[in-house]
Amino acid sequence: MQTIHAQILATGDELTTGTLVDSNSAYMAEQLEMMGVSVRRHVTVGDDMDDLVRALKDIGEQADVALVTGGLGPTMDDLSAEAAAKAAGVDLELDEEALAWIEALFKSVGRNLGRNLGESNRKQAYFPQGSVRLDNPVGTAPGFSLTIGKCRFFFMPGVPREMKRMLTDQVIPRIEEMLEDVTISGMRTICTYGMPEARVGELVEDVADGEPGMKLGLRASFPVIQVKIYARAESKMGVERILDDGTDKILDRLKNNVFSVGGRNMEEVVGLMLKDEKATLAVAESCTGGQIAHWLTSVPGSSEYFVMSAVTYANTAKETMLNVSRKTLMRFGAVHEETVKAMAEGARQIAKTTYGISTSGVAGPAGGNEEKPVGTVCIALATPDDTFVYRFHSPFGERDRNIKIFAMNALDVLRRHLQGLPPPSWAREYKP
Amino acid sequence: MQTIHAQILATGDELTTGTLVDSNSAYMAEQLEMMGVSVRRHVTVGDDMDDLVRALKDIGEQADVALVTGGLGPTMDDLSAEAAAKAAGVDLELDEEALAWIEALFKSVGRNLGRNLGESNRKQAYFPQGSVRLDNPVGTAPGFSLTIGKCRFFFMPGVPREMKRMLTDQVIPRIEEMLEDVTISGMRTICTYGMPEARVGELVEDVADGEPGMKLGLRASFPVIQVKIYARAESKMGVERILDDGTDKILDRLKNNVFSVGGRNMEEVVGLMLKDEKATLAVAESCTGGQIAHWLTSVPGSSEYFVMSAVTYANTAKETMLNVSRKTLMRFGAVHEETVKAMAEGARQIAKTTYGISTSGVAGPAGGNEEKPVGTVCIALATPDDTFVYRFHSPFGERDRNIKIFAMNALDVLRRHLQGLPPPSWAREYKP
Repeated sequence: MQTIHAQILATGDELTTGTLVDSNSAYMAEQLEMMGVSVRRHVTVGDDMDDLVRALKDIGEQADVALVTGGLGPTMDDLSAEAAAKAAGVDLELDEEALAWIEALFKSVGRNLGRNLGESNRKQAYFPQGSVRLDNPVGTAPGFSLTIGKCRFFFMPGVPREMKRMLTDQVIPRIEEMLEDVTISGMRTICTYGMPEARVGELVEDVADGEPGMKLGLRASFPVIQVKIYARAESKMGVERILDDGTDKILDRLKNNVFSVGGRNMEEVVGLMLKDEKATLAVAESCTGGQIAHWLTSVPGSSEYFVMSAVTYANTAKETMLNVSRKTLMRFGAVHEETVKAMAEGARQIAKTTYGISTSGVAGPAGGNEEKPVGTVCIALATPDDTFVYRFHSPFGERDRNIKIFAMNALDVLRRHLQGLPPPSWAREYKP
Repeated sequence: MQTIHAQILATGDELTTGTLVDSNSAYMAEQLEMMGVSVRRHVTVGDDMDDLVRALKDIGEQADVALVTGGLGPTMDDLSAEAAAKAAGVDLELDEEALAWIEALFKSVGRNLGRNLGESNRKQAYFPQGSVRLDNPVGTAPGFSLTIGKCRFFFMPGVPREMKRMLTDQVIPRIEEMLEDVTISGMRTICTYGMPEARVGELVEDVADGEPGMKLGLRASFPVIQVKIYARAESKMGVERILDDGTDKILDRLKNNVFSVGGRNMEEVVGLMLKDEKATLAVAESCTGGQIAHWLTSVPGSSEYFVMSAVTYANTAKETMLNVSRKTLMRFGAVHEETVKAMAEGARQIAKTTYGISTSGVAGPAGGNEEKPVGTVCIALATPDDTFVYRFHSPFGERDRNIKIFAMNALDVLRRHLQGLPPPSWAREYKP
């Protein structure tokens, strides 16, 4: 397989000064890596002509392909076209077609915004001689492609949505043409919950050994760890075979900790299973404070199975909203197996749902004691037949992380029940 | 004021391949900018010796100061010390003190983890000749400082928590010593809600004009827009004066859209006001699906004023949990001023709180119609004296963004009421 040396250049003072975190470069790098193109360096410079020209010339000496973002807008700070022309030693010239397009856009959209086409927008129709225009169907700034030194540069907007569209529609096909070996690539995401990233890494580290077309990557999206399989082969079938082989091996290593193959998140997985069962769900949240409801309702169509969550932060609310008896609260306290049992059963009965889940715990920073340190959470799952109750402990000291871990534990308890799996090994089951 | 040319180098295959978004570089850049040190370029290279040495030499020719992250760990891929030695043309040498420290660490912590000090960890005690060790009190990998070319490099771990600690405690004081003019810097964050970033930018763009020690920055943290004032002066009083002047001008421009000076988020601002009033709050959420509760409870100590949220997604839940009459739901539907009025009043009565707020709307992608398009939300605020009801429309097509906008509108309605301000101009008030 030939190797193409790629680099990425992000431009803009908002990036060099740290006002904005650059997520474009990681996105573009991942897309290039998936095509088998290896990214050797990322560079970021501000809106400064000398720095831009220097960076372009420098990359032009080293790389075969470069992706550039930013600097295509109408303002004084937008210098990409001029810098590219300087670095390539050519002039800027007016692209009549682009000008007509920008004018038409302003006639239709600009008038509604009370804006007229000014000299500044006209600037966006000037490109370096010899460049190829890249149309932008979702914004006002067209991009362009130009050779500087030995490198083919693709200049794209800095707005992520516009960059992604231009990259997919116009840049990737052009880079594919540059690849001598036509190979096909694919990617599959396997989502796991319950093990730290380092442990997941140890368990899967040799999966790609002896498989030249397979590469693995780990991505932590707290508290979920994703394992990504990247595959390259001569045919679509070959890619699928590699992805399937990798998936089998990973499932064998990570077992019940895998909750989805293909990238669905926990709330989608749980939602789909509830939908399949024509089951409904009610939630009673104390320490998780609406996090479970927030996740569940972020899935379009969740109203088919999600009926309600009672975020009963105060004990009085646990009584009035969920019919938890004052006796239970007085005797056991808010964070206890008996209390979450009553909460889950109360939620299920009041909302007349198939299932009820509940949480009560100590998210911190205050409120912990020796018996129930910060990180302790009790979780109950009420089903038509029985109520299951567990206690977990999270090793994370931070409130935000604890809330996410607690909420994910509750959804994972439900997920495992719906799939007929045993509860997670890190849960302590409660038998009254 | 002298200018120091700074650059940032991030290392690691996880960054060049796009598996991880680099947020360290933006953080470090912001810290440098606050000191008045301007960051001219960011570079990222993978765990490759040639690429690392080339990048270090290249930066060593251009910059005065460079911050480097990553590559200090115990694995084969961690090449920073060796690459630095090569770029500087010196050997690596064992630092006995660092070795003793790493050994002690492994005796106390490693044993619990079932790990022994191996050859790989011993590697972390080797540094380039002439370098100054930077201790790492929160991790196993010490950093170091070394001159390569004309540039002073500071090598820090890639783990954000470890990098931040080392930067603050050991790197920033050393860079401050390099600055000839001892000036003092400060920063203040002003949070606004209700105007798009471009509009905020237009309103404040000339605030720093004619103020040599003042710089402004905008940061969008959807749906909040922050205006940051950066100040530099010879004295602490001078810095305060600049920050106060900037604040006054910005408040004058942005008026009631400013909800905090100093960086507090909306839920903290609302929480503090409720606490001051010794007031309590109940929430009734439909379309926001727990987002309001989630935000409110992310503030430690929120149990003092937040009693509960009823996330009543289904209409039946609005009846059973909030006593909304079936007649109201049948006549007006879920998304209507009369319905949210009944929800807010129901929540307030059931939870016996001072205030009740409620939301019901169309977050999308489905569920919209001509009368109530996607982006429509009705919001009510029930107070001891009266109930106020509004309708908003959000121009964002996406579900996630709509949920955040809807939830923020509800908190902003409460914030303005608590501050005795009129409702936002983009709300349509409902009078039955």
